[in-house]
Amino acid sequence: MANPTAAMLVIGDEILSGRTRDANMYHLAGELAKRGIDLKEVRVVSDDHEAIVSAVRALSAAYDNVFTSGGIGPTHDDITADAIAAAFDAHIDVRADARALLEAHYQRTGAELNVARLRMARIPDGATLIDNPVSTAPGFTLGNVHVMAGVPAVFVAMVESILPLLTGGAPLISETLRVDRGEGEIADVLTALAKAYDDLSIGCYPFQKDGRFGANVVIRGADGPRVAEAMAGLRSGLEALA
Amino acid sequence: MANPTAAMLVIGDEILSGRTRDANMYHLAGELAKRGIDLKEVRVVSDDHEAIVSAVRALSAAYDNVFTSGGIGPTHDDITADAIAAAFDAHIDVRADARALLEAHYQRTGAELNVARLRMARIPDGATLIDNPVSTAPGFTLGNVHVMAGVPAVFVAMVESILPLLTGGAPLISETLRVDRGEGEIADVLTALAKAYDDLSIGCYPFQKDGRFGANVVIRGADGPRVAEAMAGLRSGLEALA
Repeated sequence: MANPTAAMLVIGDEILSGRTRDANMYHLAGELAKRGIDLKEVRVVSDDHEAIVSAVRALSAAYDNVFTSGGIGPTHDDITADAIAAAFDAHIDVRADARALLEAHYQRTGAELNVARLRMARIPDGATLIDNPVSTAPGFTLGNVHVMAGVPAVFVAMVESILPLLTGGAPLISETLRVDRGEGEIADVLTALAKAYDDLSIGCYPFQKDGRFGANVVIRGADGPRVAEAMAGLRSGLEALA
Repeated sequence: MANPTAAMLVIGDEILSGRTRDANMYHLAGELAKRGIDLKEVRVVSDDHEAIVSAVRALSAAYDNVFTSGGIGPTHDDITADAIAAAFDAHIDVRADARALLEAHYQRTGAELNVARLRMARIPDGATLIDNPVSTAPGFTLGNVHVMAGVPAVFVAMVESILPLLTGGAPLISETLRVDRGEGEIADVLTALAKAYDDLSIGCYPFQKDGRFGANVVIRGADGPRVAEAMAGLRSGLEALA
């Protein structure tokens, strides 16, 4: 059976303006690979209502799971929750369960649960909350869309909360061989291998270090012994070249 | 006049599988901001013909410029050039100008211009070459799509080759104020500021360090004095809070 699929939507002007280097995509990609959920597409859009709504609709229709990051804080530029609600034509307002979490949190910390902070309790009808052990304000799941914070420490914690609840697949097994030859020299070996093992993904990632060319060949698949067999084929193919 | 717009398309299983952390998006975002080209959207897709074709068509229709990274090397998984040609219904084959560049390069280095390496001379009809001072094999521009390598050193060099040829706009001026208060305390000040300066983009990026909460407030716009005025307004708004 094919693995479940996923897409990610990163929401934030700070990424598109070059101010911040995104870290959440790399983290999520690694976690999904471990669980056998195939990340097929990532989109980054700005803090713009229409852009978020249309990306969420497209990705939610095309993939089994969608993970969003960013835009669920207390300030005016945090418009993700409302955009997700709009994408699903769901009603959104401050919800009692989320409000109770925030009330307990601010009582503990002695800060005031003001109107701005209460925005973080805006949750669409029908959504389930995603636990945030770092800073309390919850994420949420609506339909197949998991809405999480952009702050990396909080994003990581929310991913940990949600992933065990999702249907996984066969984790991706990946073996890498570093080859100290240019890509152009090993291309024929790789082409033959890719044909013989068309159930695996065989990638070639060139690098240049100290003026020398090399490549990392990565063989990926759900079936460990099959990956190992292809890797053995790669080694003998390369030896035959020399 | 509004700035020209741009999108980026990152092509590569290695990003989606969590093996590699993308560096090119962050680099391009910074360079475009300097030149006043507004990066509006980024997509990451796998090494899949249909996925590339459909993303290229969507982005090319929606934005003034599209920049792609990845998939133009000599191996079987380098399918970008053919996918771009397909997206524009253009014919593609080894082209004499690109072939001449590679011939001179491999003559210099003493390596053989074999069939695999010749794949890097596959350029769609009607495309202009993008100079690659690092490793010779060129990128190309077809329509409004600029096709570049994924290896970061080569991507950076190609961006440097192509950006001076594009129409820029007013570079984005950006000022940042670090505030040692939680987002929830300063949200009202920011909301008022965002209303008064609705021609600017005002972003609030929370952080957590050593157990304390803070936020970087970033004010962006094309008009420097206007950004400075808003920043002064932010400072006095925050002082009034204390």
